[in-house]
Amino acid sequence: MTEKSLGVVETKYYTFCNPPGELVLKSGVKLGPITTAYQTYGELNKDKSNAILIFHSLTADAHAAGIDPTTNKPGWWNTMIGPGKAFDTDRYFVISSNVIGSCKGSTGPASNNPKTNTPYGLSFPMITIDDMVICQKHLIDHLGIEKLLCTAGGSMGGLQALKWAIDYPDCVGSVVAIATNTRHTAQQIAFHEVARQAIMADPDWQNGNYYGKSIPARGLAVARMIGHITYMSEKSMGEKFGRKLIGKEKLGYDFSHDFEVENYLKYRSDSFVQRFDANSYLYLSKALDYFDLAEDRDLTLAFKPAKASFLVISFTSDWLYPSYQSKEMVKALKANDLDVSAIEINTSYGHDAFLVEVDNQSKLITHFLRRIEKDIGLSVY
Amino acid sequence: MTEKSLGVVETKYYTFCNPPGELVLKSGVKLGPITTAYQTYGELNKDKSNAILIFHSLTADAHAAGIDPTTNKPGWWNTMIGPGKAFDTDRYFVISSNVIGSCKGSTGPASNNPKTNTPYGLSFPMITIDDMVICQKHLIDHLGIEKLLCTAGGSMGGLQALKWAIDYPDCVGSVVAIATNTRHTAQQIAFHEVARQAIMADPDWQNGNYYGKSIPARGLAVARMIGHITYMSEKSMGEKFGRKLIGKEKLGYDFSHDFEVENYLKYRSDSFVQRFDANSYLYLSKALDYFDLAEDRDLTLAFKPAKASFLVISFTSDWLYPSYQSKEMVKALKANDLDVSAIEINTSYGHDAFLVEVDNQSKLITHFLRRIEKDIGLSVY
Repeated sequence: MTEKSLGVVETKYYTFCNPPGELVLKSGVKLGPITTAYQTYGELNKDKSNAILIFHSLTADAHAAGIDPTTNKPGWWNTMIGPGKAFDTDRYFVISSNVIGSCKGSTGPASNNPKTNTPYGLSFPMITIDDMVICQKHLIDHLGIEKLLCTAGGSMGGLQALKWAIDYPDCVGSVVAIATNTRHTAQQIAFHEVARQAIMADPDWQNGNYYGKSIPARGLAVARMIGHITYMSEKSMGEKFGRKLIGKEKLGYDFSHDFEVENYLKYRSDSFVQRFDANSYLYLSKALDYFDLAEDRDLTLAFKPAKASFLVISFTSDWLYPSYQSKEMVKALKANDLDVSAIEINTSYGHDAFLVEVDNQSKLITHFLRRIEKDIGLSVY
Repeated sequence: MTEKSLGVVETKYYTFCNPPGELVLKSGVKLGPITTAYQTYGELNKDKSNAILIFHSLTADAHAAGIDPTTNKPGWWNTMIGPGKAFDTDRYFVISSNVIGSCKGSTGPASNNPKTNTPYGLSFPMITIDDMVICQKHLIDHLGIEKLLCTAGGSMGGLQALKWAIDYPDCVGSVVAIATNTRHTAQQIAFHEVARQAIMADPDWQNGNYYGKSIPARGLAVARMIGHITYMSEKSMGEKFGRKLIGKEKLGYDFSHDFEVENYLKYRSDSFVQRFDANSYLYLSKALDYFDLAEDRDLTLAFKPAKASFLVISFTSDWLYPSYQSKEMVKALKANDLDVSAIEINTSYGHDAFLVEVDNQSKLITHFLRRIEKDIGLSVY
């Protein structure tokens, strides 16, 4: 018996908020037209009650599952989305949408500004998690879905999943929030700020006007290296690399790379600069830093509008979005008498765990979604 | 009663290993002449048995205590060294030496190469913690001291303190090793590598040949920002900055700084680039990464030559040199039947704690040194 597969999945595009009906962003600035790139997996059932909206993390895209026809590569959560998987496409209609501000098919700083017929660059307005969610709502309306069975994501994706439950409480049946939090801390802001400074220090950045010229590859590479350190744990880096030297027995006593971990950072950042726009990195990191679900209120008050059931997953070795943040979130959810399941998975993978701890997460999510299905009496057909 | 004070302290310089008697570095490369900048506090007693050698961390200098006559600023460990302080200059003769490779008066990449009459730049040989220790031994010999009462330092300084006890076991009575370890881990190497890449990505770096021209200030600033994040803890950053905005009530929705933590990083890194040489940062970070006390041996075997008594201090919130590393060190020391006192101080200050947790450290060090004094029957006079 061969495993069922999603096969090749094409990316689709939905354009909305055409002028004069532009979207008023949280900053007050108007933007339009806006395009959202998205993919769907599985079939929408007759009463449109089996839709799950998936959100990606900082630098990922709409290609969450199946095989991309151009790169031939599986999606970033292909282990979690598909027939018989956690987000079971035999039961659910799964939608994955690329965020506004990104460079992966949705409108962002690298997109053409129709008013000037040049890329936006830094004239692109600052965006927030709130704005990402509003754009996704336009997409869901376009697909004719009134209520999502679930919103789900890890890291930046988790922020969107939570925000949906607050901004559109009647449209969200359940939330799976993984390795995420409710506000960015000083340390999280600091890491992003260093990444931004690295990009902006690159003379090729040219105040964001580098399109069609040399990209700020060196600055973006440094930014990504910082990211990679924060995505792994001290332990997982030790287990994977330790002090292993690169194809030589002795230290080089020069500034070429000595240690495997140095090569890993170089390899990962070199490939990243080929696939991601530096300005998008600036905008999306800022959206994360701006995120504060509670703002001036108490966190319990912030969750007051929510009606969904919640599954909150965190990881013991995740020091970028540490478990204590999830625990604060769970406390605030419970204070609102919401239905909350929470688990801290014991793992050494750090923040990356939401991408690699497949078995544990699959069991939890499958169990959670089946319960949600029962609660609403979902008909898969 | 006014507090006794060290007053103004001048930096002294000792030059040694003049050609043809150059020092053979660990890499095998010869270097000479070598100058070491150092300061001393207190008086050497008649039998020269009350000398304590203090080692600085990555970017500090010989000016550990007293007031610098040019800047009018106190030394980096002025709270710990002085009359009646932990390293009590009424009892001990305290020596603080700047490491080779630095830019603070000792020979380093910014120094003049007498063979070419230009700064060394990248022609400066790679240096190691071992080489720093050999240079300090030359200085101690020059001062006519056969045995040190104590070697002491935090962070990179702790590595030197430990190495002394192994390389010159008959010359070291005791060791105070604070917030340090016995080998650099993959994560520690990774943070340094990103800092190096940030410096080398700056076009002004010019492969290290920037002396007399523009310095690679932008790259060095990014490198330093990364450092500052790792020196504080997530908790201390939260307590100090949280999500506080800079002199405004609302988010700016642009890439100028919004949060106080961003301003802090900018302020600290801007002042740093004025006082530290980028090439020195490259060399010293590499020396740290190369450090592995055990090398191919068991750590217990590595400590076998040591005869000193040890005081090992670590900090609960130090995630750059985490406590577990100190615990491994203590285990290996104890396996050699060495006299070891070890304590983990509960603090939120992170790695910076070795500079700011004055009261706790002072009590421990004072108590430890008085015991060492008694053991050897020290005469202060």
